[in-house]
Amino acid sequence: MEKKNKLINPHERQVVAYHESGHAIVGHLTPGADPVQKVSIIPRGIGALGYTLQTPLEDRFLMSRSELLGKIKGLLGGRAAEELVFGEVSTGAANDLEKVADIIRNMLTVYGMSKHMPNLSLVEKEKNPFLARGPVLQRRSEKLEELIDSETREIINACYQEARQLLIGHQKELEAMAGLLLDKEKIEAHEIQSILGPRALSKKGKANLAVAQ
Amino acid sequence: MEKKNKLINPHERQVVAYHESGHAIVGHLTPGADPVQKVSIIPRGIGALGYTLQTPLEDRFLMSRSELLGKIKGLLGGRAAEELVFGEVSTGAANDLEKVADIIRNMLTVYGMSKHMPNLSLVEKEKNPFLARGPVLQRRSEKLEELIDSETREIINACYQEARQLLIGHQKELEAMAGLLLDKEKIEAHEIQSILGPRALSKKGKANLAVAQ
Amino acid sequence: MEKKNKLINPHERQVVAYHESGHAIVGHLTPGADPVQKVSIIPRGIGALGYTLQTPLEDRFLMSRSELLGKIKGLLGGRAAEELVFGEVSTGAANDLEKVADIIRNMLTVYGMSKHMPNLSLVEKEKNPFLARGPVLQRRSEKLEELIDSETREIINACYQEARQLLIGHQKELEAMAGLLLDKEKIEAHEIQSILGPRALSKKGKANLAVAQ
Amino acid sequence: MEKKNKLINPHERQVVAYHESGHAIVGHLTPGADPVQKVSIIPRGIGALGYTLQTPLEDRFLMSRSELLGKIKGLLGGRAAEELVFGEVSTGAANDLEKVADIIRNMLTVYGMSKHMPNLSLVEKEKNPFLARGPVLQRRSEKLEELIDSETREIINACYQEARQLLIGHQKELEAMAGLLLDKEKIEAHEIQSILGPRALSKKGKANLAVAQ
Amino acid sequence: MEKKNKLINPHERQVVAYHESGHAIVGHLTPGADPVQKVSIIPRGIGALGYTLQTPLEDRFLMSRSELLGKIKGLLGGRAAEELVFGEVSTGAANDLEKVADIIRNMLTVYGMSKHMPNLSLVEKEKNPFLARGPVLQRRSEKLEELIDSETREIINACYQEARQLLIGHQKELEAMAGLLLDKEKIEAHEIQSILGPRALSKKGKANLAVAQ
Amino acid sequence: MEKKNKLINPHERQVVAYHESGHAIVGHLTPGADPVQKVSIIPRGIGALGYTLQTPLEDRFLMSRSELLGKIKGLLGGRAAEELVFGEVSTGAANDLEKVADIIRNMLTVYGMSKHMPNLSLVEKEKNPFLARGPVLQRRSEKLEELIDSETREIINACYQEARQLLIGHQKELEAMAGLLLDKEKIEAHEIQSILGPRALSKKGKANLAVAQ
Repeated sequence: MEKKNKLINPHERQVVAYHESGHAIVGHLTPGADPVQKVSIIPRGIGALGYTLQTPLEDRFLMSRSELLGKIKGLLGGRAAEELVFGEVSTGAANDLEKVADIIRNMLTVYGMSKHMPNLSLVEKEKNPFLARGPVLQRRSEKLEELIDSETREIINACYQEARQLLIGHQKELEAMAGLLLDKEKIEAHEIQSILGPRALSKKGKANLAVAQ
Repeated sequence: MEKKNKLINPHERQVVAYHESGHAIVGHLTPGADPVQKVSIIPRGIGALGYTLQTPLEDRFLMSRSELLGKIKGLLGGRAAEELVFGEVSTGAANDLEKVADIIRNMLTVYGMSKHMPNLSLVEKEKNPFLARGPVLQRRSEKLEELIDSETREIINACYQEARQLLIGHQKELEAMAGLLLDKEKIEAHEIQSILGPRALSKKGKANLAVAQ
Repeated sequence: MEKKNKLINPHERQVVAYHESGHAIVGHLTPGADPVQKVSIIPRGIGALGYTLQTPLEDRFLMSRSELLGKIKGLLGGRAAEELVFGEVSTGAANDLEKVADIIRNMLTVYGMSKHMPNLSLVEKEKNPFLARGPVLQRRSEKLEELIDSETREIINACYQEARQLLIGHQKELEAMAGLLLDKEKIEAHEIQSILGPRALSKKGKANLAVAQ
Repeated sequence: MEKKNKLINPHERQVVAYHESGHAIVGHLTPGADPVQKVSIIPRGIGALGYTLQTPLEDRFLMSRSELLGKIKGLLGGRAAEELVFGEVSTGAANDLEKVADIIRNMLTVYGMSKHMPNLSLVEKEKNPFLARGPVLQRRSEKLEELIDSETREIINACYQEARQLLIGHQKELEAMAGLLLDKEKIEAHEIQSILGPRALSKKGKANLAVAQ
Repeated sequence: MEKKNKLINPHERQVVAYHESGHAIVGHLTPGADPVQKVSIIPRGIGALGYTLQTPLEDRFLMSRSELLGKIKGLLGGRAAEELVFGEVSTGAANDLEKVADIIRNMLTVYGMSKHMPNLSLVEKEKNPFLARGPVLQRRSEKLEELIDSETREIINACYQEARQLLIGHQKELEAMAGLLLDKEKIEAHEIQSILGPRALSKKGKANLAVAQ
Repeated sequence: MEKKNKLINPHERQVVAYHESGHAIVGHLTPGADPVQKVSIIPRGIGALGYTLQTPLEDRFLMSRSELLGKIKGLLGGRAAEELVFGEVSTGAANDLEKVADIIRNMLTVYGMSKHMPNLSLVEKEKNPFLARGPVLQRRSEKLEELIDSETREIINACYQEARQLLIGHQKELEAMAGLLLDKEKIEAHEIQSILGPRALSKKGKANLAVAQ
């Protein structure tokens, strides 16, 4: 499935290497995010020019607000790296941005994690077609839509700035990782840690550790 | 169906224990709410990491406005406990928030219990397809949608603050119940009452008692 | 079909007795409304905890604006009684409120009885699918929707206040009728009249009488 | 099909007699409207308690703006008579009002006869499903909807006032015609003319006469 | 198919004659419009009381903005003539106005010929149902709808005024042509030119001539 | 498939020659745009009066923001040439404008390339019909729609002005290319370069070159 794709041109290969390094660095440095296991710039099928693999250390059933924000920052790290290195953005982030929008939509309308309308669920509720008189469908006022749109943009902008600042503070590591990727095409967890150092343990990780002892 | 799930990690187990204790304490202390019969943190299938069982003492056909508000407070008690103990919220309240939104939607659009537009039913009325000229479908102006949305948020915020204050005033009990749950995984009505004391009888409960004598 | 339902608790039975007495008293005292024939608190199936039967003295083909308002007042009398006696409202009025909304929708959009947009019919007119170029579907501006919503609320509020004032002026009769209902479960026209006195003849009733002589 | 309906009560019969006389008088006195041929208060099926028959003197293919306004005035004459005589309105005008709304909708959206947006056709134009790229569907801004709604109400109010003034100026004739209808149940063109006098010839009628000579 | 229709009354025949003469005169005098070949007031089926035939001198693949405006003016010439001669408008222009609206809709949403939002295509683009993630459907803000509606009305009003001024400046010709039509029912290109003189050659016509020489 | 179409008139042939030359010149002079390979004014089927062929030098998987803007400028070059040479625009640009709108829609809603709402994906997300409670559909507030519409117009206007300025600065070349096209009907890359000179290498092209060496 993975093979060295000769078709991708040298410039695009560079863009992909910095993009994936952006994901990996922001993911690694964000407390509470899942550890980065692998980064690759070997194209796999249409629209997948590279990938960064992050997997949790254990099964998980709950996500906290800050963990979801961490996921968003990692996803935006790819585009932030492109903008920092090449001075402009490409179409390559479309998939990341769709995932970001999806997480935020869930935070605001399913998990009640909005700052401006906390604890409000906007889950669609179809009227039961077999009941003559049931509660009516969940609708939303234009004002509520605006609140959702503006908070969505607030979250995106704040997370993007954090991702960007992290990368500005780690430009040497960004160059090193992109260089290694262009050289080896795929790097593993130990190579990532040799560039970025060990991960800081999150509050939750410490809690789990404390309980386990 | 219930079994000790080894997969849930220690931190998540703690979150669930405080979450369910939050439901139980607010439910127990809210006059007119149904008595709490059982609390469990034994996972049961996808998305159900624990539960708090409240059942009425007798069959019931009518719900008063304050009883519905009591239900909402109990449902919000889980998230309020999480926020108080862990300083942030998780995805674990999604189901509770959906129920809260559903109750409020019914209060405002089916039961005419709005403060701002009392006695107004907004039940959808499909036009009879067999009548050439029937009353037209119930529509709503944007202004009415805004009223509904803002009153929904008012009710959520007020109930959440009440649930939170109750828990702040009973932190010792919250610690005790969460500790007992982490220890025994499931606790019964008599254990709940040994922590929280007997329930205050509601006005309606007194009325029923008086009539019965 | 009717039988003494042992399941309903004493408090709910009281609520239903006052609710139905509210309908009956407002109905009896509103000129031009149909005479009250029977009141019952014997449950009949799901959601029907009692009923008040009003039937016209003759077949009728036309309804005047004031007769429709009279119907609305009678329907709101149940909830008004609950609020006066118990200090809060219950889910038991959902059906009444749906009927109220339906009558008002017809007044404003089918019968042209609005004060703010008199003589305007908003009956939906489907475009004839067999005509290539017919008159377009009836649409409505947001401003018109707001007018309809605000006049709907005006009518509900005015009628509710009238029903409430009637009951405040007849609290002795309300107590008497609810007591009789709790005692006998079903009361007939002559018992209603022995509590409330004979009905005042409406203007139309007098007209009919004059013509008939 | 027509028979003396014993079910209709004396008051309603009076309402119908004045309602139909209202149509007939306004129709007869409006220049350019079709001549009134017959008026009846014999009920014919559901919802048709009486009728006023106006037929043109010749086949017609074009309607002028003032002829359409004349039709609207005649249709509103029924309700105007009810309001003048009985001091309030009934459900009996629903059909008339639906026709009025339909004529105005056609004037404003099909015939380009609006004062505020003259010569604008808003006929719906479905996109041809067989053409990959056709002109898009006709949409309307909220501002345009408001213009249509407010001009609709302007036309209704102006025509209603004209119909009402005509009837106020012919109260003796209204009494006479309603009395005759209550007596005979159906009256013909010559009886109408004996009460109201001969019709004034319209401008168009004069033109036709001049051409014919 | 064409036959002298005895059913149309003398007044309506006059209206049709002036209406068609309006089309023909504005069409003939608008530079760049197609030459008028024939004018007829012989009714042909439902809703077609007359017609004016304009055909281009050669096949055409492109239309300029001014040519489209010329078409609109010709279409509005019929109603403008009615208003000038009879002082009011009739339903007879419905078809013309629908064509006018259709041309303007195409100018503004397909051909990017708007003055206020030039070069903007608003062609509907259905999402490809076979693509999981395609570009979303073309939507429009209310503000854009208002721009479209107000520019539509601007174009109609400007073109109508031009058509009206042309006819005011050629009333003698209008009378002559309508008279000839009432007399002969159908007139040909040479009769039109004998009343209106030869057509002025358009800029494009001159260009074609120059190239052809 | 291609043949000299005798039906197109001399004026339209001129319009097409300048239109295609506009595409070719703006395309050739915009850094980063694909090289122009061929230009033709030989009609090919309905609606395709000519074409300009631009193909990339290598396969490409990513597009940068400036490359997408370059595509838009090239597409608008056709209409800009028409406006400069003939003083007005024609229907011939409909296809170009649809492509422009499509690219901008993708930039703003799929690729997160908006200036005003960067990194926001608005890709439609259908609710999974098999999941009882999934994230709700992506909606948009009216305010967001306005942002999208106004930024769309900003981008169109800016790109159109750039295309127009390029052509104003190369009028001699425009005349030369249109003349050659009218003479030969189809021109190839070497003829284009003999008129416009060699293409400037883009930043990315230089980067690829540098990497390849």
